[in-house]
Amino acid sequence: MPKIVDHDARRAELAEAVWRLASTEGLEAVTLRAVAAQAGWSTGALVHYFADKEALLLFAFRLVAERVGRRVAAAAEREPDPLELVRRTLTEGLPLDAERRTETRLWFSFLGLALTRPALAKAQRLAYRAWRARVAQLLREAQRAGRLDPELDSEREAAALVALVDGLAVQATFEPRTLSGPRQQALLDERLARLQGSGAERGSPA
Amino acid sequence: MPKIVDHDARRAELAEAVWRLASTEGLEAVTLRAVAAQAGWSTGALVHYFADKEALLLFAFRLVAERVGRRVAAAAEREPDPLELVRRTLTEGLPLDAERRTETRLWFSFLGLALTRPALAKAQRLAYRAWRARVAQLLREAQRAGRLDPELDSEREAAALVALVDGLAVQATFEPRTLSGPRQQALLDERLARLQGSGAERGSPA
Repeated sequence: MPKIVDHDARRAELAEAVWRLASTEGLEAVTLRAVAAQAGWSTGALVHYFADKEALLLFAFRLVAERVGRRVAAAAEREPDPLELVRRTLTEGLPLDAERRTETRLWFSFLGLALTRPALAKAQRLAYRAWRARVAQLLREAQRAGRLDPELDSEREAAALVALVDGLAVQATFEPRTLSGPRQQALLDERLARLQGSGAERGSPA
Repeated sequence: MPKIVDHDARRAELAEAVWRLASTEGLEAVTLRAVAAQAGWSTGALVHYFADKEALLLFAFRLVAERVGRRVAAAAEREPDPLELVRRTLTEGLPLDAERRTETRLWFSFLGLALTRPALAKAQRLAYRAWRARVAQLLREAQRAGRLDPELDSEREAAALVALVDGLAVQATFEPRTLSGPRQQALLDERLARLQGSGAERGSPA
């Protein structure tokens, strides 16, 4: 009988090994050899899945993006208020617990590596585009529901909100006491509160 | 006659070589060997200045911080309006021209490396602390001059403004067309305009 390989199961096994390595030792530790050892595979078996180190880094990056994406989707199922959903969605990008702190660290080490690697930079670009598009869409839903000024430019606001979350994540990663969880959340919440209250001041065309 | 070594001049020479390398080939290219070659020194002479690669990376990081710091100080000499000075100071952190784009790239690749190197993380922390303190001080001056609501918490606002600038810099680095210079500037300006207009909504104690 020919050997049947369940590729989805093997991918999940690899994802688990990559995540375990990356979350404990950082992206620098994610090498073909180390992942093979962690998964209990031979390096030879692994190269059927990853041509090189870059493919492995991309895989690790997508794991982070998928984890955040799953939580964002779950929030959408539970939260009926569109403005509160904007808040909960953006909050998934803040390093507020151990899981999100790990994701943030991996995200920014990937960013550093992507500066000199076009394939990684492309993945980064697509991830940001999707992240902004999601936030912009939720802002428009909040506008339609009468929870936000209809004049607000959702694309611009999405870029600014994503930027705020990213920047808070950078500071919080290196200064967890100064940028504590409650403080990060408060800064995001203030920003959203001002967005709600800013209808009157935004009369001038851009 | 004993050989007289002008250490300041030699440091300036090294700074020039490190900057030339880092700005054209990235932080990864900044090695003792490459800097020695770029400066026309022997590697042996260089180790009197830098014990290891980490010392060299710290030096490169400080060069970036000093460059931004000099422009921020120059802006303070020329700009009498404290609120406009907040704007000009923060704008120095946005990648709006070739020089600042290079600085931004080096800043974020250093950030990636700092995630696993405590000495680099410390330098990063101190730089952010100084950056936030500077912005907070300018916000207080704007408050004293009656240009901003005196109730505004300058430390919090400084953290949020620095976060916004950082996050915009990340997106602009990977998507220079989507986050063009004028758009980055407009997003920062809108944020500052809302800060000015937000006195009325901020009546509740934090």
